[in-house]
Amino acid sequence: MFSGLNAFPHTPLRDESFDEAAFARLIERLLVAGVDSITALGSTGSYMYLDRDERRRVAEAAVRHAGDVPVMVGIGAIRTSHVQQLADDAQQAGAGAVLLAPVTYQRLGDDEVFGLFEAVTAGLSVPLAVYDNPGTTHVTFSDDLYARIATLPKVASIKIPGISADPVEASGRVEKLRTLLPSTVTIGISGDASAATGLNAGCDAWYSAIGGILPAPAVAITRAALSGDTDRASAGSARLLPLWTLFGEYGSYRVTAAIGEHLGLLAPDSLPRPVRGLDASGRARVERIIAELQLSD
Amino acid sequence: MFSGLNAFPHTPLRDESFDEAAFARLIERLLVAGVDSITALGSTGSYMYLDRDERRRVAEAAVRHAGDVPVMVGIGAIRTSHVQQLADDAQQAGAGAVLLAPVTYQRLGDDEVFGLFEAVTAGLSVPLAVYDNPGTTHVTFSDDLYARIATLPKVASIKIPGISADPVEASGRVEKLRTLLPSTVTIGISGDASAATGLNAGCDAWYSAIGGILPAPAVAITRAALSGDTDRASAGSARLLPLWTLFGEYGSYRVTAAIGEHLGLLAPDSLPRPVRGLDASGRARVERIIAELQLSD
Repeated sequence: MFSGLNAFPHTPLRDESFDEAAFARLIERLLVAGVDSITALGSTGSYMYLDRDERRRVAEAAVRHAGDVPVMVGIGAIRTSHVQQLADDAQQAGAGAVLLAPVTYQRLGDDEVFGLFEAVTAGLSVPLAVYDNPGTTHVTFSDDLYARIATLPKVASIKIPGISADPVEASGRVEKLRTLLPSTVTIGISGDASAATGLNAGCDAWYSAIGGILPAPAVAITRAALSGDTDRASAGSARLLPLWTLFGEYGSYRVTAAIGEHLGLLAPDSLPRPVRGLDASGRARVERIIAELQLSD
Repeated sequence: MFSGLNAFPHTPLRDESFDEAAFARLIERLLVAGVDSITALGSTGSYMYLDRDERRRVAEAAVRHAGDVPVMVGIGAIRTSHVQQLADDAQQAGAGAVLLAPVTYQRLGDDEVFGLFEAVTAGLSVPLAVYDNPGTTHVTFSDDLYARIATLPKVASIKIPGISADPVEASGRVEKLRTLLPSTVTIGISGDASAATGLNAGCDAWYSAIGGILPAPAVAITRAALSGDTDRASAGSARLLPLWTLFGEYGSYRVTAAIGEHLGLLAPDSLPRPVRGLDASGRARVERIIAELQLSD
């Protein structure tokens, strides 16, 4: 769950309603590609746009269709008591772990963020991954805060945002984190563009948006990096540079949705309003990249 | 509703549950002070921390206890379809208007923000105020976006964030906005510290956090400014400078909660977790200020 490739699929919507059949096909695709684990209801899975009932149905469907592959479920919400309800629902659905980002409305201080993780982990029977996603939560984790939260029971992994593209700096960063965290807590990279660098630098896992929609190349990069073949991992990522460029312009959420829509895996206009998909020019670029890199299998 | 003092009371929580009796007392206090209108479920009213059922109960209670004073209800949510449900609930509860901030998880572009307001106003039978609150929504409204949204049916007011402390600059800003907006759309200042300046500069309304817990001085400042007595309005605001300083340090949400707790209007520890109230030093300052400025009536 907390090492290797953890793939983050979309939650397919059709006319704003959860489409379980499409979700089952997405998960089947992940199983065929050999991902190590799956996270339902990550940011890519639109968790913050779904209500409690929808989230319960998505969690249940993920566990049902994933078979033996472990499933983590995102439980983030703005209020602590709601997170606790979602944690209960996820565990009841059979989630093997939960993922928690400190989503904010009022700005939170470090003690408030810590208090959230303290309250939630106290009620858990499965492990938890800490989701550091400053672009959406507007929380900046200090290293001190990582270290404090990592001492809590059930904390098993930290999902860090993108890392320096410089391999030496990236290795230094991962080594620094190792000194702060208990040896039982793994480090997972997100920010797909820097995933190969992060894995080559010693991260244990890749929490991957692209892995949710194009799992095969993500599995290949992960396998190469974790077997020590850093060059092959870097080359695999470099090949996807046109995608990382699009991610930088539109965000991974919208680009992976457009890929899924182009490949027929997601219904047209699959994102929850008010979010809109890519404009026509972005879609044309997605189509060209998929064709040129032969990513449509 | 869209001119004069619009007061934003807290939604009182006791052990994380809505305390309608305390809410009725807060509203009674606003009526006695003579506020022009009331907004339930603003940011100060914790709207983003409450679920749909809680929000319906708060809206109904606000209308029930406010008597003849018009009530606006905050309907912000991250997903458009949820905003539409909340708008229906608010109107069914008898709200005279709704207040909408474009709350985000994924960053939104101007077209997406406009699309939200377009979809929501299309289904409204009451007027809407646009809530520009960049500190919590992380949306930056351009003047162009103001102007586009202001052309939509039902848009009646824009709640702008704090304004320059310089009276000439403030007047220039309000005049500029007047040229962009239809004459039917009022401009309301928020950011309590700059409210007197904003009203003196020509804003029609003060959407006020302090007015929800200490309505009397807020009413006095508003009456002075709107009757043209700019000096008295400025003096009334200058007297509250120690409060504005606290607002700057802790945010108006936490400070007004601490005032309410100190005055016995809110239960201890009244904010929804993970948000915590003021630390001991902040509370001591609140108590001192309330005593020195004789604000406890």
